[in-house]
Amino acid sequence: MSRTVIRNGLVITAADELLADVLIDGEKVVALAAPESGLAESFATGADTVLDATGRYVLPGGVDCHTHMELPFGGTFAADTFETGTRAAAWGGTTTIVDFAVQTPGMSLREGLDAWQAKADGQCAIDYGFHMIMGEVTPHTLKEMDQLVGEGISSFKLFMAYPGVFYSDDGQILRAMQKAADNGGLIMMHAENGIAIDVLIEQALQRGETDPRYHGQVRHAFLEAEATHRAIQLARVAGAPVYIVHLSAAEALAEVARARDNGVNAFAETCPQYLYLSTEDLARPGFEGSKYVCSTPLRPEQHQAELWKGLRTNDLSVVSTDHCPFCFKGQKELGLGDFSKIPNGLPGVEHRMDLLHQGVVDGQISRKRWIELACATPARMFGLYPRKGTIAPGSDADVVIYDPKARQTLSAETHHMNVDYSCYEGKTVTGKVDVVLSRGKVVISENTYLGHKGHGSFLKRDTCQYLV
Amino acid sequence: MSRTVIRNGLVITAADELLADVLIDGEKVVALAAPESGLAESFATGADTVLDATGRYVLPGGVDCHTHMELPFGGTFAADTFETGTRAAAWGGTTTIVDFAVQTPGMSLREGLDAWQAKADGQCAIDYGFHMIMGEVTPHTLKEMDQLVGEGISSFKLFMAYPGVFYSDDGQILRAMQKAADNGGLIMMHAENGIAIDVLIEQALQRGETDPRYHGQVRHAFLEAEATHRAIQLARVAGAPVYIVHLSAAEALAEVARARDNGVNAFAETCPQYLYLSTEDLARPGFEGSKYVCSTPLRPEQHQAELWKGLRTNDLSVVSTDHCPFCFKGQKELGLGDFSKIPNGLPGVEHRMDLLHQGVVDGQISRKRWIELACATPARMFGLYPRKGTIAPGSDADVVIYDPKARQTLSAETHHMNVDYSCYEGKTVTGKVDVVLSRGKVVISENTYLGHKGHGSFLKRDTCQYLV
Amino acid sequence: MSRTVIRNGLVITAADELLADVLIDGEKVVALAAPESGLAESFATGADTVLDATGRYVLPGGVDCHTHMELPFGGTFAADTFETGTRAAAWGGTTTIVDFAVQTPGMSLREGLDAWQAKADGQCAIDYGFHMIMGEVTPHTLKEMDQLVGEGISSFKLFMAYPGVFYSDDGQILRAMQKAADNGGLIMMHAENGIAIDVLIEQALQRGETDPRYHGQVRHAFLEAEATHRAIQLARVAGAPVYIVHLSAAEALAEVARARDNGVNAFAETCPQYLYLSTEDLARPGFEGSKYVCSTPLRPEQHQAELWKGLRTNDLSVVSTDHCPFCFKGQKELGLGDFSKIPNGLPGVEHRMDLLHQGVVDGQISRKRWIELACATPARMFGLYPRKGTIAPGSDADVVIYDPKARQTLSAETHHMNVDYSCYEGKTVTGKVDVVLSRGKVVISENTYLGHKGHGSFLKRDTCQYLV
Amino acid sequence: MSRTVIRNGLVITAADELLADVLIDGEKVVALAAPESGLAESFATGADTVLDATGRYVLPGGVDCHTHMELPFGGTFAADTFETGTRAAAWGGTTTIVDFAVQTPGMSLREGLDAWQAKADGQCAIDYGFHMIMGEVTPHTLKEMDQLVGEGISSFKLFMAYPGVFYSDDGQILRAMQKAADNGGLIMMHAENGIAIDVLIEQALQRGETDPRYHGQVRHAFLEAEATHRAIQLARVAGAPVYIVHLSAAEALAEVARARDNGVNAFAETCPQYLYLSTEDLARPGFEGSKYVCSTPLRPEQHQAELWKGLRTNDLSVVSTDHCPFCFKGQKELGLGDFSKIPNGLPGVEHRMDLLHQGVVDGQISRKRWIELACATPARMFGLYPRKGTIAPGSDADVVIYDPKARQTLSAETHHMNVDYSCYEGKTVTGKVDVVLSRGKVVISENTYLGHKGHGSFLKRDTCQYLV
Repeated sequence: MSRTVIRNGLVITAADELLADVLIDGEKVVALAAPESGLAESFATGADTVLDATGRYVLPGGVDCHTHMELPFGGTFAADTFETGTRAAAWGGTTTIVDFAVQTPGMSLREGLDAWQAKADGQCAIDYGFHMIMGEVTPHTLKEMDQLVGEGISSFKLFMAYPGVFYSDDGQILRAMQKAADNGGLIMMHAENGIAIDVLIEQALQRGETDPRYHGQVRHAFLEAEATHRAIQLARVAGAPVYIVHLSAAEALAEVARARDNGVNAFAETCPQYLYLSTEDLARPGFEGSKYVCSTPLRPEQHQAELWKGLRTNDLSVVSTDHCPFCFKGQKELGLGDFSKIPNGLPGVEHRMDLLHQGVVDGQISRKRWIELACATPARMFGLYPRKGTIAPGSDADVVIYDPKARQTLSAETHHMNVDYSCYEGKTVTGKVDVVLSRGKVVISENTYLGHKGHGSFLKRDTCQYLV
Repeated sequence: MSRTVIRNGLVITAADELLADVLIDGEKVVALAAPESGLAESFATGADTVLDATGRYVLPGGVDCHTHMELPFGGTFAADTFETGTRAAAWGGTTTIVDFAVQTPGMSLREGLDAWQAKADGQCAIDYGFHMIMGEVTPHTLKEMDQLVGEGISSFKLFMAYPGVFYSDDGQILRAMQKAADNGGLIMMHAENGIAIDVLIEQALQRGETDPRYHGQVRHAFLEAEATHRAIQLARVAGAPVYIVHLSAAEALAEVARARDNGVNAFAETCPQYLYLSTEDLARPGFEGSKYVCSTPLRPEQHQAELWKGLRTNDLSVVSTDHCPFCFKGQKELGLGDFSKIPNGLPGVEHRMDLLHQGVVDGQISRKRWIELACATPARMFGLYPRKGTIAPGSDADVVIYDPKARQTLSAETHHMNVDYSCYEGKTVTGKVDVVLSRGKVVISENTYLGHKGHGSFLKRDTCQYLV
Repeated sequence: MSRTVIRNGLVITAADELLADVLIDGEKVVALAAPESGLAESFATGADTVLDATGRYVLPGGVDCHTHMELPFGGTFAADTFETGTRAAAWGGTTTIVDFAVQTPGMSLREGLDAWQAKADGQCAIDYGFHMIMGEVTPHTLKEMDQLVGEGISSFKLFMAYPGVFYSDDGQILRAMQKAADNGGLIMMHAENGIAIDVLIEQALQRGETDPRYHGQVRHAFLEAEATHRAIQLARVAGAPVYIVHLSAAEALAEVARARDNGVNAFAETCPQYLYLSTEDLARPGFEGSKYVCSTPLRPEQHQAELWKGLRTNDLSVVSTDHCPFCFKGQKELGLGDFSKIPNGLPGVEHRMDLLHQGVVDGQISRKRWIELACATPARMFGLYPRKGTIAPGSDADVVIYDPKARQTLSAETHHMNVDYSCYEGKTVTGKVDVVLSRGKVVISENTYLGHKGHGSFLKRDTCQYLV
Repeated sequence: MSRTVIRNGLVITAADELLADVLIDGEKVVALAAPESGLAESFATGADTVLDATGRYVLPGGVDCHTHMELPFGGTFAADTFETGTRAAAWGGTTTIVDFAVQTPGMSLREGLDAWQAKADGQCAIDYGFHMIMGEVTPHTLKEMDQLVGEGISSFKLFMAYPGVFYSDDGQILRAMQKAADNGGLIMMHAENGIAIDVLIEQALQRGETDPRYHGQVRHAFLEAEATHRAIQLARVAGAPVYIVHLSAAEALAEVARARDNGVNAFAETCPQYLYLSTEDLARPGFEGSKYVCSTPLRPEQHQAELWKGLRTNDLSVVSTDHCPFCFKGQKELGLGDFSKIPNGLPGVEHRMDLLHQGVVDGQISRKRWIELACATPARMFGLYPRKGTIAPGSDADVVIYDPKARQTLSAETHHMNVDYSCYEGKTVTGKVDVVLSRGKVVISENTYLGHKGHGSFLKRDTCQYLV
């Protein structure tokens, strides 16, 4: 097997910042060694690759636990395939994604999973796992949950939004949570009161409010807070943990914080778009706002400070992307004249590590917290740690050499996602990926993609590691 | 018209305790006068009745804003008719009830109201009004709400419990609240997550847990708290006030308190059964527990102190009875072997004033707070004040002379409700009604009922007076 | 004795709004009567005075429980004497003040009280009582508290601010609270951490920050919140109630709300200046800011909405004035070049009723809540109810006929307080006093003062009526 | 230099659980290596020591950041010298202590520090650092703070308790916090309202309540909560972090949690005694209670669950011992007949790691959280990480091999602390130290102490690592 040594960088994990050499043998990290110990030198004898990381950071590869490659939605499909999407992820220093397989009502979880496995198989640039979206909670799908946990699909997403599509009622949610309490699965919740929101959508459209800006108004922050509280109470009744996806409203965060103060196993993620974008973007003129339509929606700007605070206090545990890109041309345009027909979702898988590093530069979070939010906690939350999410003996050699001083300007011109616009067009950030290794193989170096589709393997996950 | 004078009592209202004479002309109070002013003497010249209240309290007649006479439920009917139920109320010093007319799905609110008006017309011993239970929220029933407000039916009850029977979904609730925000109506909410509870009921029965005690377990306090929070958030979105009926769980109370701290127009009532009875009563052996089956259910004893505290802090605004009696024989027994078939409801209309006075004796609340909770606030909340709920010039002469020292023992032997058991069998309380006037007419005196059916009139109510 | 009748007005108390006639015999209200009852007509036969209040409000006279007439402070004296101050109060519809007698360290409470009784005796236009400021908590003064409660001085003010002047340490506060728990006295607390504030004052002056605006910065909102919490915890240890005076910071209000949610007997007042003025006034150029120097200080404008909310939720129970006027010329100017030498205090006794009525006009509070905050609750809190604070048989005939439509512009040109500026110069408000009766005697009518000094009597107060 | 290898253990840090070999060269860990990598074998060639840790845990040495060796208190001295105390620590797997140097009023910080350095120099079995107790906050001692931070004394303890001894007033506290905000120092606070407590002590003794049990009553939980809130508010005004020592009351914890939810840099430690002992121990008969007298005091048993919850939610960040032993004979007995004369303090430095591991066994905390609370966080909090508190390349080779299955019974018979009783006499716990290395040297092995006094070095600490 080939050996790689990364020398003299500042190794940053969720726990530590160490000047250390990273010794890699084949696909695995085999040691962290003090630079002055001589261990790296002797190990490097005969090493295939010696990378010098002087002046740069050596990070665990990013773990993005919320992506939707090729998702069918609203009559179209998310524009990134597993091939293009995972390649873009690699460009941005993310070496693991956990995507969502979808069960279509009337079919089994198995069929949904098989379909998604088929889409991803042989296509991915980096490693990948699956959560399971349960389109239907039935005696049969409940039983299938046990099997799937055994196969490494240990998390299940339910929707309190989208009645008639993905929506589960509170009884179904309760049953799925009870099952998860038994088998160690983790319920992930899209927490918006979709029944009430649909009334507000209908009323807005009746009033002729068809512009994308109304998307933000009808999906009321109180209705995100409501559903968040409800999900947590149902989880308490079931004795199960719960993980709130893409939290965007300060009021919803307050519900999570309250539960956590009470010692409840409630967790939440937010996404970079909620930290940097706002309802002002949704209100951009000329249908530009459609580029910012996602659910939960962007919120007024003052929510951003609350979310950053939540990232510091650990009431928000994870930053994922909810990557679900739709091109402006031909896709977002489906909602011209009716905001409710705009496909929901933003592109983001490529720039999560950078946008969070900008938070480090801005003094919002520490470097270790950056890695905790982007790598370690998602890996732990979804049963991948310490294989993923850290740099330690025995871990997969998913490693990023990161230049904290480099500056880059985000743009659709230069990004690698398969979508015709950038939410951050023209925004300059400090920090940039230099080199990316996926299971010991260099996939990004000198601004070149050196990987290939099919390198990425399916990850059979354990259960959530945050439960006592 | 006839004149009545009540002399030398301690007049207690929500605001005042005064040694004053009460001057009544016909059906109305025309003055409160200082005893030493001589006004009573001159007024009494030619008065038909002079009542001496020395050493006793002179109270406004009680206003019970939550009763269910003759309610069809679970294949049977609440055992008190309007005749027997209002007579029992009068015995206990309650001179106004607001009962619930029921709209049956498929029919109009009008039809439901007409049916209930017909049941009550000519039957009542005391004055009565109606709330409207909306069995269905449809464009038609929403439109009818405006009409009913105009006719004095200014409050509408919805259910988050009882799917398939009274249940409304969150979209229907939101629409009704929006309508109420427009027309001044007040939404009253049965706040329990019935969808989730039905799952727990099914599971309990599958496990063979059929005893009444399981009624208290499946109707989980967290699910009352959840629905309470949800109702409040929906009301905030609609810009409407909300009134939570029969709150029993400390966790639900905490939600109301939190909203009220934020200045939200959220109100709640509790009932005497939640202040004095507990899950230990539900667990009585030999199906005795069925006598204590109501929804929301009785809670563990430690909730009682929290409820009393809520009555002091005004996070609980009203004490009503939710009077809905079913005889043990033949009615409660319908649930032998299946607690979910036990008709939900307790008898209570007769003893609310006394049980709350016991709280005064026990130091839980002050005398003025007693009257505020039992008379003034329900009257204000439901648009009857100052006609009802106080003693003031222009008020209806609904007056109770109350002996605070008398002791009585509650028992099915002696009570006047048409039901074969008492929840408080053998309990001795301090305080007892002496004389009751309804619109100037003495209906109870010297332990004798002097009223007659048909004396009670329908009350056309204004809208809630708690909104700025 | 002379008889007065006030006819056809809308009588507003904390509890009721009634079209009623008010019958007054000598100094007392003897009855409220329905206009159509004929009682007023017969009573008016031979009445000295019949006042027509058609289209106007009939209110209980205002009770201002926080004034400082002739207070020695910072080497000067508050500019209103008991004569001028109580006359100004009468002009504004306030018919009772409770002023603060001051015990000087080294002397007894008795000596302090006697001195203040001498200042007020024969001087007042309206009735007055005293709280006692304890300059020193010693075994002797603790013992005197019992006596004073017996003499109608049932409330005692302590200071957590002003070290070396009025300051009491936490041990002294605890002892006084324990004594109050025994004898029914109520501890009133100036809740600011004066020890910490004095450090900040010294540092600000050292930095050359001498302008009045720095008064608002050194008296930090967190230090008001801190002291408020501390006072409440000490009160809980002592088992005593506590009343926070002149609360101005939202953070302090949050502490009171939290305690009240827990059922603690904690109360707070705010003042009109905190509802209408802000740190922007303190920052007015050219030493104008000195006119707005009081302690607790004015806060940034956003606190105002929180205080209005507190008035609605009853976390703020009372609005008093903390009337303590110092002329700009010669008094406020003592602090030129050193904000800490500006005498602390604002004029306000005249316009409290009007400024709160403006809150009614603006939709902040209801009419009944206006009267509750300004009349009923202060009277109950300090043992004067129902003699003062309401209109009821047996009450003192302190009555205001108020024109809710009249408009007036506040100005030093036209006000009756003995001070050379108005905090509200040029502000126009809606609502104005028409007629004022003090114990049955008309003292203001047709824009003329008809009273005389010495009419006002000392009020021997009972203990606080808010304790179970 | 000598080499040591620890093979095949489960390395547990705050972040990770890894099967890894630990490679030690001289005093430092130089690498962690995957067992199958062969690195340990080649490194071990010529290694002096190879330790097999199969089936056992390999832990960072414990960091106890709160000890009082030889502390003068109440006319006597804590019974452990630096020699005996650090040896006992080593027996229990603790390899670093941070003790408190004391400044005596009238002398300089420097003099106090020199005195404590002299006590410790050449005596310690393990490494040690110092916090500085400021007996006096003066312009001079404030200036000295800067110097001490430069010398590695980066934390300063102040007392809100013990008036006349260590007590600082709020102005002094504020000044010290401002200084800390400037120089990176961390203020540690003994948060009890000592002024109020002294009143309660005096009153209790006057009532003849002299038994140790009254120690727990006079030091009221509300007064710990009060001081905790006050310390936090002062820190917010100063812009400084604050660390609450030996928190024992659930009410105080609630204050810390509230601040942390608001993003305030407030931290708190608790101690094993508060997790396992209660007021029932203080109430043991025959003066046995004196063995449990410490301040803050033990609390009623229900507080324990709240503290464990706080350890899980991270509202409690650290578990230290507050080790301050006094023998029952001759020392605790000084308080016979007057609980206030009992020297305050418990022995504990030896069993912290074991008692917390028992929490792991009982399911209260995870293994990683155990190490975070006992090793990593104290090291980070006090500027010792990653030198201490973890096992990583470059860390000091302070390593413990821990047998998680061994059982031991705690007893004064067998413990190594220089004190004649154990608080846990007869208590059996699961888990026991096997081998302890201090800076690469084996000091405990096969139930034998192999270290020597003077091995332990003074630790020059950086500043707190928890501040952004």
